[in-house]
Amino acid sequence: MKAEIISIGTELLLGHIVNTNAAFLSQKLAEAGIDVYHQATVGDNVERLTRAIKESLKRSDMVIMSGGLGPTIDDVTVEAISKLTGRPLVLNKMVLNGIKDYFKFRKLRYVKASLRQAYMPKGLKLIRNRVGTAPGLIAEYNGKEIICLPGPPRELEPMFTADIIPYIKKRIKNAHPIRSRSIKIACAAESQIDASVRDLLRLKPPTTVGIYASPGMVQLKIMTKAKNDRLAKMAINKIERKIRSRLKEQIFGCDDQTLEGATGMILLKKKMTIATAESCTGGLIANRLTNVRGSSGYYKMGAITYSNASKTATLGVPEEMIDKYGAVSGQVALEMAKGIRKLAGSDIGLSTTGIAGPLGGTKKKPVGLVFTALVTGKRSLVREFRFRGSREEIKFQTSQAALNIIRENI
Amino acid sequence: MKAEIISIGTELLLGHIVNTNAAFLSQKLAEAGIDVYHQATVGDNVERLTRAIKESLKRSDMVIMSGGLGPTIDDVTVEAISKLTGRPLVLNKMVLNGIKDYFKFRKLRYVKASLRQAYMPKGLKLIRNRVGTAPGLIAEYNGKEIICLPGPPRELEPMFTADIIPYIKKRIKNAHPIRSRSIKIACAAESQIDASVRDLLRLKPPTTVGIYASPGMVQLKIMTKAKNDRLAKMAINKIERKIRSRLKEQIFGCDDQTLEGATGMILLKKKMTIATAESCTGGLIANRLTNVRGSSGYYKMGAITYSNASKTATLGVPEEMIDKYGAVSGQVALEMAKGIRKLAGSDIGLSTTGIAGPLGGTKKKPVGLVFTALVTGKRSLVREFRFRGSREEIKFQTSQAALNIIRENI
Repeated sequence: MKAEIISIGTELLLGHIVNTNAAFLSQKLAEAGIDVYHQATVGDNVERLTRAIKESLKRSDMVIMSGGLGPTIDDVTVEAISKLTGRPLVLNKMVLNGIKDYFKFRKLRYVKASLRQAYMPKGLKLIRNRVGTAPGLIAEYNGKEIICLPGPPRELEPMFTADIIPYIKKRIKNAHPIRSRSIKIACAAESQIDASVRDLLRLKPPTTVGIYASPGMVQLKIMTKAKNDRLAKMAINKIERKIRSRLKEQIFGCDDQTLEGATGMILLKKKMTIATAESCTGGLIANRLTNVRGSSGYYKMGAITYSNASKTATLGVPEEMIDKYGAVSGQVALEMAKGIRKLAGSDIGLSTTGIAGPLGGTKKKPVGLVFTALVTGKRSLVREFRFRGSREEIKFQTSQAALNIIRENI
Repeated sequence: MKAEIISIGTELLLGHIVNTNAAFLSQKLAEAGIDVYHQATVGDNVERLTRAIKESLKRSDMVIMSGGLGPTIDDVTVEAISKLTGRPLVLNKMVLNGIKDYFKFRKLRYVKASLRQAYMPKGLKLIRNRVGTAPGLIAEYNGKEIICLPGPPRELEPMFTADIIPYIKKRIKNAHPIRSRSIKIACAAESQIDASVRDLLRLKPPTTVGIYASPGMVQLKIMTKAKNDRLAKMAINKIERKIRSRLKEQIFGCDDQTLEGATGMILLKKKMTIATAESCTGGLIANRLTNVRGSSGYYKMGAITYSNASKTATLGVPEEMIDKYGAVSGQVALEMAKGIRKLAGSDIGLSTTGIAGPLGGTKKKPVGLVFTALVTGKRSLVREFRFRGSREEIKFQTSQAALNIIRENI
């Protein structure tokens, strides 16, 4: 079974928004075992939209469309479907009542323009929208299917997951779902990871491995196409075991797991508390740690000591030390970590100090030079890094390095 | 002049990555006055790619393609162009030397597989890649043009801006560029903004206004199509003046300006320093403030007092006050702001305390309840909010509210 995706919206053709719907729909279709060989984007224009639908149906069994279901005259999806299928638009009372309820619930004044949204091609299957006012549509055309979904992701995503996927699954047999798993490694060089798994990167379908690098992170994506979920999982597990046996503790997690989440899990397990003293990262590490639900169980406090005076007053870093070595130095990083650990009464103290740029660098201490220190009751360590990139990229890479140091050293 | 965009890559059809190239290219083409009525995405398959190119050229004057120029056998763009234009692939010494230089510079071992990347269709115009190894290509086909760009955004974007846009501009005359400007408002209700500018939202081309809302932000996008830049700017300025006369200080900036940047500008101008005490936002406000270059000029320090003990020990919030009113209360928010101002010796103290969820809410103090306080030498104020959404959304909305309170009250 083959499907194609058509995204509708002039704002996509003008590049004002990025098309996340196409990625979402493609991923869900792949997981359901449906092949997508083509995605298209067209504007809010009945003729061009109709032509795109016809072309897609020449190549596939099903077209999934997003957008153009809103109340304004720019929204032409319903009109296009009406013309294409020869079904006249009639006022749908159920849809109209749904719209009126929505306005009432949101305490908004009902706008007459919304009436337009209640006209639907006669006799089509409508899908309730639990978030917004525009229902989804399923139309048959020459024995093939056209599915129309609302454009806003927060309306499209739940509708597709809850209603469309089960509908599609009922209609197909022998689909070979695609399953994947991302194995995540922080702060490693892509070339080192590549060298460790080169043979796996050369695997041929049905099970393959890809490598993807971004600042501070390398991901190995295992992908397989199998007759059913059980076989897919077995095939993926087999490769994952091989990867884990080679990269071991370098791996911090899979798929949606984050480095801050993995770090938090270890802190929870070891029943250790942590406090952070940040200079160059300016609160990013604290922010990431506290993005994890339940982090109040191990995160005690943080200090963002941006000025030298605050490093001394709050963390007790001796003024003479800052004068002698500079605020960006291993010595100061270590004192900061000790200081915050003492102030917070936590098991672990973590610190960062560095030059995030774009200004403030010197020949000896260039932009991207960063020190981070970790202090526990038993040990203390300081690491030096040289990162490249924008201010925000340097902050992010520093936070990756710091979180990974916690993970690896407690 | 009409152009179409074809994005190439199985990873796009599987939804593993979001297609940001299509948005980038579309936006740049619109700014150059070139209409884009169609975008397509196809996989790494010579036949389907060739068919997509032919279809696009039926409808347009130019096809701009991204991806499929890499060194692996999955990369088939060059092969497709060779077949389509009937130009044989020959080893291009200049490209080969470029690849070897790249490996030398990056201190990577030269891999023989990269040789494949140096075979180019004979006689085509090549565009140097300043970031990676794959050059861009410009091919003529039946009097129309095909432009091929590398897939990675960090290679595609500079190549398109520096080489392709000037190339295209030379070839077109009388283009009517599209210009736009986003007017940004923080922490307002979409319905309130909508009511203030409803007449402008109904404007007809060539100059139109759209309204876009996201958590903590409303944007009004003015768009115009004009004969030249000067006229476009005049048309946009005229509407912007109208919007500003109605929304006044609610507007914090335009286009790429951020709320933290706008807040920082005011602090700089007034020569005031600030310190932050965060509970529920966990360092997000500090992180956003310090994302702005030069923020060390006004940001003195921050405390993330996640535990009650740290609120008392570091900020001097009386234990009895926390017992009486709870850590999430206006009283504690105010004491936190006073405490951090004193500790940092800053002009302004800002604080947040609240329940970010998903756990920890009660009937009286539900998830999303947030207090924020601002204290200066002259005044102090406390605000209460009730936000909805995930933990991260509540943190973000709180940070928006807090930054906006600084902006509006100093």
